[in-house]
Amino acid sequence: MSKDRIVIIGGDAAGMSAASKIRRVNPDRDILVLEKTAHTSYSACGMPYYIGGLIDDIDSLVARSPATFRDKYAIDVRTGHEVVAIDPIAQRVMIRHNGRADISEAFDQLLIATGACPYCPDVPGAGADGIFGLSTLASGIRIKEFIEQNKPKNAVVVGGGYIGLEMAEALVRQNLKVSLIQLGREVMDTLDPDMGALVSQALRDIGVNLYLSEEFEAFESTNGKVQAVVTNQRTLPADIVILGMGVRPNSKLAEAAGIELSVKNAIKVDDRMRTATANIWAAGDCVATVHRLTGQPFYVALGTVANKQGLIAGTNLSGGDACFPGVVGTAVSKICKVEVARTGLQEKELQNLDFDYAAETVKTRTRAGYYPGAGRITVKLIGEKGSGRLLGAQIVGMEGAAKRIDIIATALTARMTVTDLIDLDLSYAPPFSPVWDPVQTAARQLLKKL
Amino acid sequence: MSKDRIVIIGGDAAGMSAASKIRRVNPDRDILVLEKTAHTSYSACGMPYYIGGLIDDIDSLVARSPATFRDKYAIDVRTGHEVVAIDPIAQRVMIRHNGRADISEAFDQLLIATGACPYCPDVPGAGADGIFGLSTLASGIRIKEFIEQNKPKNAVVVGGGYIGLEMAEALVRQNLKVSLIQLGREVMDTLDPDMGALVSQALRDIGVNLYLSEEFEAFESTNGKVQAVVTNQRTLPADIVILGMGVRPNSKLAEAAGIELSVKNAIKVDDRMRTATANIWAAGDCVATVHRLTGQPFYVALGTVANKQGLIAGTNLSGGDACFPGVVGTAVSKICKVEVARTGLQEKELQNLDFDYAAETVKTRTRAGYYPGAGRITVKLIGEKGSGRLLGAQIVGMEGAAKRIDIIATALTARMTVTDLIDLDLSYAPPFSPVWDPVQTAARQLLKKL
Repeated sequence: MSKDRIVIIGGDAAGMSAASKIRRVNPDRDILVLEKTAHTSYSACGMPYYIGGLIDDIDSLVARSPATFRDKYAIDVRTGHEVVAIDPIAQRVMIRHNGRADISEAFDQLLIATGACPYCPDVPGAGADGIFGLSTLASGIRIKEFIEQNKPKNAVVVGGGYIGLEMAEALVRQNLKVSLIQLGREVMDTLDPDMGALVSQALRDIGVNLYLSEEFEAFESTNGKVQAVVTNQRTLPADIVILGMGVRPNSKLAEAAGIELSVKNAIKVDDRMRTATANIWAAGDCVATVHRLTGQPFYVALGTVANKQGLIAGTNLSGGDACFPGVVGTAVSKICKVEVARTGLQEKELQNLDFDYAAETVKTRTRAGYYPGAGRITVKLIGEKGSGRLLGAQIVGMEGAAKRIDIIATALTARMTVTDLIDLDLSYAPPFSPVWDPVQTAARQLLKKL
Repeated sequence: MSKDRIVIIGGDAAGMSAASKIRRVNPDRDILVLEKTAHTSYSACGMPYYIGGLIDDIDSLVARSPATFRDKYAIDVRTGHEVVAIDPIAQRVMIRHNGRADISEAFDQLLIATGACPYCPDVPGAGADGIFGLSTLASGIRIKEFIEQNKPKNAVVVGGGYIGLEMAEALVRQNLKVSLIQLGREVMDTLDPDMGALVSQALRDIGVNLYLSEEFEAFESTNGKVQAVVTNQRTLPADIVILGMGVRPNSKLAEAAGIELSVKNAIKVDDRMRTATANIWAAGDCVATVHRLTGQPFYVALGTVANKQGLIAGTNLSGGDACFPGVVGTAVSKICKVEVARTGLQEKELQNLDFDYAAETVKTRTRAGYYPGAGRITVKLIGEKGSGRLLGAQIVGMEGAAKRIDIIATALTARMTVTDLIDLDLSYAPPFSPVWDPVQTAARQLLKKL
């Protein structure tokens, strides 16, 4: 196996994690990476901070450049190379490069790491200038340049997920007047609305105009430039629009090649990151994974998952044996001073799954009450009635609040009960926590309802 | 049971947690608390910050005063009442109060929550003025007053455990010249020396003079006032001395009453917090608990454990049924800007227990490298060879580093392997973590050695 050729489509988190791992294990392996854009191994998650001006140097977001991979890792990275078709029988990929479309390359093993792209519904005006999704490093650079060159005044963010909210904050930092349209009752619908309301308030506090429970309908444009965003209730002037309605897996290539898909049209893979088609693997934002609590297929696009899956694919492609066990739905973000985290299942998901659950929310402090900097923290905890099993948690609070979600992510993975959580020997000192950690205070209250 | 009389010896974390719980469940229960000092329910852990001037108001360290307990909880709290003997047969306690020693009170159930006191070896000069241990609120007030009234210049801290180090920092904040004597190779011997060295350096960085691998021998005094601290290598001038050689359980009362003791002369209790003597219970810093990893008796004096044990005792004393499952050895502290945390077993303990283990240490960042405020973090992880079982962790780092220990404490409790730790779905966003959380980066490196 060590002599056959590996082709990787996509040079970001999953693709380059795999390529690097293979190179470390197989120094002589023929590894070809085909990347559509000019960049490799960049932190897409860091782009809102670059656009907002918190990070000055775009290069700091690039972990390793194409030249580094070529020179130091002897990995044949070809940027500006877009794969336009996969032939799984002939084991070749067809490539578009510099206007030419007659190039193809053979593979023995193929890894699809094509990522995801921002969702934009097919509405009038969707092609106008000034409408941006944020996914590639190039898209981040384009947004920053657009702001610098066009000095837009009014920004509209369509959708209140993580990227939408982080971008709303970034645009406020750049002194734009920012409006945000959200279909749901509150922003961030990966939280239950009672917790999302705390995040909505954090956005209002920095001056974002929220239009909640409002449906996005169309863009208005003049001379191909966006002018306004139309909802079912109003028309908002817009010099720049950010798409924050989530992402969709880039799975069209795989689908066209007859590779089996899963939920949300993400590519179906097993826990080794193998697709259902021989010699073709996939990893990162383009694949579906498994939710460890439900055992069901689950789609999530996160840099950390993509990195891990890339490493797993790379391990298996270089003669090792590694599994990706799935996720428990952990995510974290910082919106202004407010930290937001979630893991496990939220109420909506539990209702769909017919769980008999109870939820409890407590408001307490991140540190001992008397210690300087003790900030607010709200913890919502959900458990199963009867069994007492822990099912999920959501945290909104000030500095130090969010990383506590990892305690719950770990406890969920171990299938702990709420009582088990109360029994944990968690760390305490006044600069870090009240004497009962907030997650244990929430657990004590929840236990009474189970 | 709800009509019999409960007497509690000690009015701090364990005692008042128990009393409060009993009151909530049994509104009419006769509860008598006998407290030697003038204070109840205070945060001993907060006192170094009061002495250092980070917290101005000593009252902020008191969660509930004796008057609050009497007036709002109808708990008969008697301060200045020192129990001098327990008669387990007659079920009475003998009390000293205002010079009288002829008082006694009957109990149906007795809870011993006498705490711990700073250890001071029986050396020449130990009784001199200016030598302080830090345990009760009164002792914290005395130290602060002593500094204000006597304006000491030279401070010597004897012993480099948590309290010793927190006090060294507090005294530096009060502009004293601070020396610290430590028998071990590095401060904080609940860490392995390689990690302790990072904490030693943090102390040097704020100007503490460290005398490591040095044996404390005696105090010198003039007119009953301490003048110097003598070690096996030198004599250090001292206007004030802080005892930081750890604490010993206050178990003499229990021992004299024939109540069975455990390791380090701490009172032996079962997981319900019952002593081996009928109708007598104990909780908090005066009892031994169980280490959940070894199953062996273990002594630790921590506010969070005392609070939890008090709640357990109170639950069982009010007709409920609750267990304290033990600890995994978690502790955390902040020394200047450096956060320090540990859990599980350290190398010394593992050698004593004949574990076949491997350890790995990684140095990385608390946040994404490009994100403002990304600080250093060093994570040491220990696992069992063969089984791959996680055994312990130590963390030293800048803001945001220490609370990660809770991930490991949770994983240890669930008896996870190092691979299980790598597989966890931990939270990631640039303000909180690199894309691989530092504990998972350490786990990946450790795995290669197991």
